[in-house]
Amino acid sequence: MTEITGGVCAPKGFMAGGVRCGIKPSSQKKDLAMIFSRNPCSAAAMFTKNKVKAASVQVSQENLAEGSLRLIIANSGNANACTGQEGMSAAKRMAQAAADAFLIRPSEVAVASTGVIGVKLPVELIEKNVQALKSSLKDDAQGNADALEAIMTTDTRKKEIAVEFDIGKKPVRIGAITKGSGMIHPNMATMLTFITTDAAIIPSALDLSLRRAVKKSFNCLTVDGDTSTNDMVVVMANGEAGNKLIMNETLVNEGSTAITDEDFETFCAAMDHVCIALTKMMARDGEGATKLVTVNVTGASCEEAAEKLSKSVAKSSLVKAACFGADANWGRVLCAMGYSQAEFNPLRTGVSFKSGKGEIEVCKEGQTVNFCEEKAKEILSQEEIEILITLDEGNAKASAWGCDLTYDYVKINGDYRS
Amino acid sequence: MTEITGGVCAPKGFMAGGVRCGIKPSSQKKDLAMIFSRNPCSAAAMFTKNKVKAASVQVSQENLAEGSLRLIIANSGNANACTGQEGMSAAKRMAQAAADAFLIRPSEVAVASTGVIGVKLPVELIEKNVQALKSSLKDDAQGNADALEAIMTTDTRKKEIAVEFDIGKKPVRIGAITKGSGMIHPNMATMLTFITTDAAIIPSALDLSLRRAVKKSFNCLTVDGDTSTNDMVVVMANGEAGNKLIMNETLVNEGSTAITDEDFETFCAAMDHVCIALTKMMARDGEGATKLVTVNVTGASCEEAAEKLSKSVAKSSLVKAACFGADANWGRVLCAMGYSQAEFNPLRTGVSFKSGKGEIEVCKEGQTVNFCEEKAKEILSQEEIEILITLDEGNAKASAWGCDLTYDYVKINGDYRS
Repeated sequence: MTEITGGVCAPKGFMAGGVRCGIKPSSQKKDLAMIFSRNPCSAAAMFTKNKVKAASVQVSQENLAEGSLRLIIANSGNANACTGQEGMSAAKRMAQAAADAFLIRPSEVAVASTGVIGVKLPVELIEKNVQALKSSLKDDAQGNADALEAIMTTDTRKKEIAVEFDIGKKPVRIGAITKGSGMIHPNMATMLTFITTDAAIIPSALDLSLRRAVKKSFNCLTVDGDTSTNDMVVVMANGEAGNKLIMNETLVNEGSTAITDEDFETFCAAMDHVCIALTKMMARDGEGATKLVTVNVTGASCEEAAEKLSKSVAKSSLVKAACFGADANWGRVLCAMGYSQAEFNPLRTGVSFKSGKGEIEVCKEGQTVNFCEEKAKEILSQEEIEILITLDEGNAKASAWGCDLTYDYVKINGDYRS
Repeated sequence: MTEITGGVCAPKGFMAGGVRCGIKPSSQKKDLAMIFSRNPCSAAAMFTKNKVKAASVQVSQENLAEGSLRLIIANSGNANACTGQEGMSAAKRMAQAAADAFLIRPSEVAVASTGVIGVKLPVELIEKNVQALKSSLKDDAQGNADALEAIMTTDTRKKEIAVEFDIGKKPVRIGAITKGSGMIHPNMATMLTFITTDAAIIPSALDLSLRRAVKKSFNCLTVDGDTSTNDMVVVMANGEAGNKLIMNETLVNEGSTAITDEDFETFCAAMDHVCIALTKMMARDGEGATKLVTVNVTGASCEEAAEKLSKSVAKSSLVKAACFGADANWGRVLCAMGYSQAEFNPLRTGVSFKSGKGEIEVCKEGQTVNFCEEKAKEILSQEEIEILITLDEGNAKASAWGCDLTYDYVKINGDYRS
């Protein structure tokens, strides 16, 4: 598997574009994006578990029910959440406008929104600009860049990736763009991730590969039930790579011969790579963040415990602030583990800090070890920090990603709407 | 019930004091406190639910088992947590030293510590200064002030209260001091609360009154399982008020005649008042906080839902940051409710902001109402803000308290140990 350029336009048969329609009044940035496949696609998606769901989420959930899509239209600058019936019809009109422009069914369109909550979506601006949006579509890196720019809000970095790998001698590609730059925890700003692939894969297999990848990636950044009103991950697969149709284990078990399970695993590995890469880019771009913090737990009794522990540490405001201050305050790490609700033995817990400047053990068997504060400070002063937690309970491990807590986070969120 | 001065020294028969023993190297502040009752006391306590418990917590839990106490000794500047066997023996030596000074049993002593985690407690400093500490004891406001100063860490305000009320014509007093100035959520700094009363009350009744009060107060600030390694609330009742012995319902039901249930309820009301007052003082004093934020939920289906919803909003970093910026971003309130895991109907939810400058409705039936941004800004610019959430599910209600998220929170926690 090799990383390539082009983002969502890297896979065959996909075009993307973006324009400014005026939803973001105070800026000149693009605010309307589109991703289109010239052929029908298998599709899968995961949506926020928040009880308060944006209209776009509800509409897209409906449309995804059939497991097929051809187009994604997304706006930034307005979340179209908490906007009632008016918001629902606005989201439907958004899908309809895009469908009309390509003479496809609205049920083949996914709709996404991100921005301020509770403000009426000026859908007429979208309708007015949908043709311009269509004309902006390109099948190259520029098209990808335009779409990406149009979904960004407080993001300070562009988050895209594309990979190529072989399935039975056939080169297959997966491309993706994402926006999301919340402090992630305890409340992340909206995350939108759009993934394209030219793999030939049935919807159920695509769905399973997405769920697997999200569990290992985005969900280690955004804990279930702790997501925004608009979060959405959508993947479209148009089959243009011409590989042998990928199915999933379920079907194998049903005795199908069409499929080699290997192909499915190969595809899943690529999906994992794409989603984890985007997750790290998002953590690195946390609002006001200056550092990417990776929390690795090993030796846990079970995967669930490892996940709870790593997430609890990654989300701790005190740990985040200590990372910002390059303060080797490992006690906060144990404290966050202690209220994670996960089983572990504090007296058999070790903690080390690691970065490009080296690794240093700061806690052994739940107690301090004499370590060089200066060295620890140097290690924690890097832009990418790892917190290594070793337990003595079993072989389960998990990683979680976060960022440091800085003055700028407060600044950015103190008056977001202005 | 009237509020009076004197804190923990207001009730008859209690003395308090504080000295500097040198655990806080970089400051000249007092760091060792004591509260002593000349007579034996009924006692009750609640401790952190964190899996990682400071040695002082473990020792005090043991000593409290008998439900009696005469003395509390507490240090600031060192949490004596994650310090292993050495830490345990240090906590025991701390209790022993205090007990020896008064020729009482160490099991009559509660030990508390707060400060940095994972650093060896220099217990010899405590042993060396315990006589000076004893000599510092006073039965007046000064003694209370000295003890309070000696348990403070990042606290910027002194948090104390005392009340007087009658039980069967007999004046009874409850006094308390507390330290705790964490952002409270998602990880609070250590909370220590010491309560004294001259009420005559049996340990089980005292325990029940404490649990009831804490559920309505501190636990609405610090969610269970989300507490520090050292949190502790201890109450001592020495009976010197001479009221008829207060027992609790359990005993009434067993047909005891000694007790009028009214007395117990009267006592509980006073305990509630004391604990809620301290809770608000702590929220108001959150690290870097400039505002006290009270979240009131009414019309919930059940108390549990009301509690989950109010806490989820009070702990939301985005809501906190919006309060700091006086930004009427009510969408974040609904978002935080949405991931609280509590049942409610977003479409029947109302949100208003309230302060000394008035009240303004910003969300009705889950949607925005046209409100005056300037007026909202004025209301949210006050030092005490209320977020009023009205549901249409039932009659349950709950309050939670928090503070805003400011630059200074990051500053304070960025390098706490230096």
